[in-house]
Amino acid sequence: MSSTAAILETIRPLFGDELDAVELEIDRLLENDVTLIPEVAKHVILSGGKRLRPILTLLSSRLSGYIGDRQIRLAVCVEFIHTATLLHDDVVDKSDLRRGSKTANNLWGNEASILVGDFLLSRAFQLMVGDGSLKVLKLLSDTSAIISEGEVLQLTHENNIENDLPTYLKIISAKTAQLFAAACQIGAALAEREEHEKPLFDFGHNLGLAFQIADDALDYSARREKLGKSIGGDFRESKATLPVILAWRKSNAEEKKFWIRTVREKNQWQGDLARAISIMEKYRILQEAIDYAKKYVEKARGSLEIFKNSPEKDALLELLDFSVSREY
Amino acid sequence: MSSTAAILETIRPLFGDELDAVELEIDRLLENDVTLIPEVAKHVILSGGKRLRPILTLLSSRLSGYIGDRQIRLAVCVEFIHTATLLHDDVVDKSDLRRGSKTANNLWGNEASILVGDFLLSRAFQLMVGDGSLKVLKLLSDTSAIISEGEVLQLTHENNIENDLPTYLKIISAKTAQLFAAACQIGAALAEREEHEKPLFDFGHNLGLAFQIADDALDYSARREKLGKSIGGDFRESKATLPVILAWRKSNAEEKKFWIRTVREKNQWQGDLARAISIMEKYRILQEAIDYAKKYVEKARGSLEIFKNSPEKDALLELLDFSVSREY
Repeated sequence: MSSTAAILETIRPLFGDELDAVELEIDRLLENDVTLIPEVAKHVILSGGKRLRPILTLLSSRLSGYIGDRQIRLAVCVEFIHTATLLHDDVVDKSDLRRGSKTANNLWGNEASILVGDFLLSRAFQLMVGDGSLKVLKLLSDTSAIISEGEVLQLTHENNIENDLPTYLKIISAKTAQLFAAACQIGAALAEREEHEKPLFDFGHNLGLAFQIADDALDYSARREKLGKSIGGDFRESKATLPVILAWRKSNAEEKKFWIRTVREKNQWQGDLARAISIMEKYRILQEAIDYAKKYVEKARGSLEIFKNSPEKDALLELLDFSVSREY
Repeated sequence: MSSTAAILETIRPLFGDELDAVELEIDRLLENDVTLIPEVAKHVILSGGKRLRPILTLLSSRLSGYIGDRQIRLAVCVEFIHTATLLHDDVVDKSDLRRGSKTANNLWGNEASILVGDFLLSRAFQLMVGDGSLKVLKLLSDTSAIISEGEVLQLTHENNIENDLPTYLKIISAKTAQLFAAACQIGAALAEREEHEKPLFDFGHNLGLAFQIADDALDYSARREKLGKSIGGDFRESKATLPVILAWRKSNAEEKKFWIRTVREKNQWQGDLARAISIMEKYRILQEAIDYAKKYVEKARGSLEIFKNSPEKDALLELLDFSVSREY
């Protein structure tokens, strides 16, 4: 069992029935006479997703004291928004594999991925409208706009090895952290505890930043490769993520030429990934990136201080520690 | 001046200021630090769009007796939903030209078109949420889901020359007529005249069907080609639209082979478009299609009977007649 699955198994008993309800609802909402829709959507949603974002909504709702069942549908809604972005991302990045399986665009073509992504985003809005809270609708429609803004920003900066940290943070803040934040803030909105909204938003946002920074670092982890995990996806797509930005700053003239060719000019040869990893090891870049992520872990931890101890708070803190302690 | 522009000039004085307000609002809402967003969006929105859908919202709001300014933003919202689908459609169809200009995917790549389309759809939802009517939110989130369902349905049927009329109608009903219908129903929702909702929805829906059927027919019009208009787009993409479905039924064995090769098998040679047009002329297919569209024109006209005469009603009826009388 991977450490991801292990952590989720530990906290699962906390909301077992609710997570099952989320899965059932996903299944029910994807039924469609246009059979290509459930085929494509289920391929992505049911192939190894960790349900991290729905779990955040379930835990935050309980932490904030909400009693009821609206969190189920809104957790599905958050997962649909996430899945829509995955489908479109894979087309944009021309990815063939995700979580070790063939991507939807690889199996059914770009057309199906684009249109089923559009369908899922629309379905997410239908769910929110069905829920009927204008506060949640505002939060999630803002989130959806911010995500796509972040994706366009990333598109215009992705091969820029000289990206500064504020630009990198702006991108991951929009494309990842915003949805984590919204997933958490929904809990406070459901519980009608306005004073919990900012702390839960901030918790999710900082958790999202830490998670994405660690994710970007793990993509260059030789140890993960030895464990049989697929790495190097960002490098092959010449994306200037944090490890490249940090490595660029320390690189000597010859190493800089390497980054210019492989990332800025997208001209890669056999053996380049190994060279990239060896430069990163030389300058201990992964450690630097993880240390950087840990700053956001501490910020996130601070946001939960207003809540008294509870199994839900413990579970959120476990997820937080997990975000930067995945095997790497 | 094209007849399209001419008809719009006739009815323009009716709501001149409001349409200007719509244009200003579009411009304002597209301002963005991520400059690729306004570049791509404005390229599509400002290049020759007729603003048919926003005009329907403006006219329906007045017809239903609404006084206020909410129709402006909702008209923009409808145009944004439409533009998002255009951006994605052009990627799905691999189109290089639209309205005689290069498509956004041709100029900026598929990535930008997909992501800016997502942004516009999200922006549309933000506008609706800002408006605050759960009725309008339900109408337009349903519409958005129905459009993408229709697009997926079209994808799975597009090369099927043996499509039956119900399938063709289901596709154009979802991908075109639904947004026309919603654009009109918004007027009744704003005016809080529940008894106007169905008639205005039905009017828009039947107008949309007539408009799309005529559009599909015009794509094979030799006369339009002589006027310097671009035709044959659907044929080159091997789409089994109504003219092909109708021609297939009447074709002899040799002609059927032609349709099988060019549409079902997507294998086209020089001169095939001319041959397609000549088969259609032989069986008077365009006239048959336009006659078919006129049934929906009559249905739409009937839906407006409950409204007493007014300049707005006259304008809607003019748009209706225009939908099937464009030069062909």
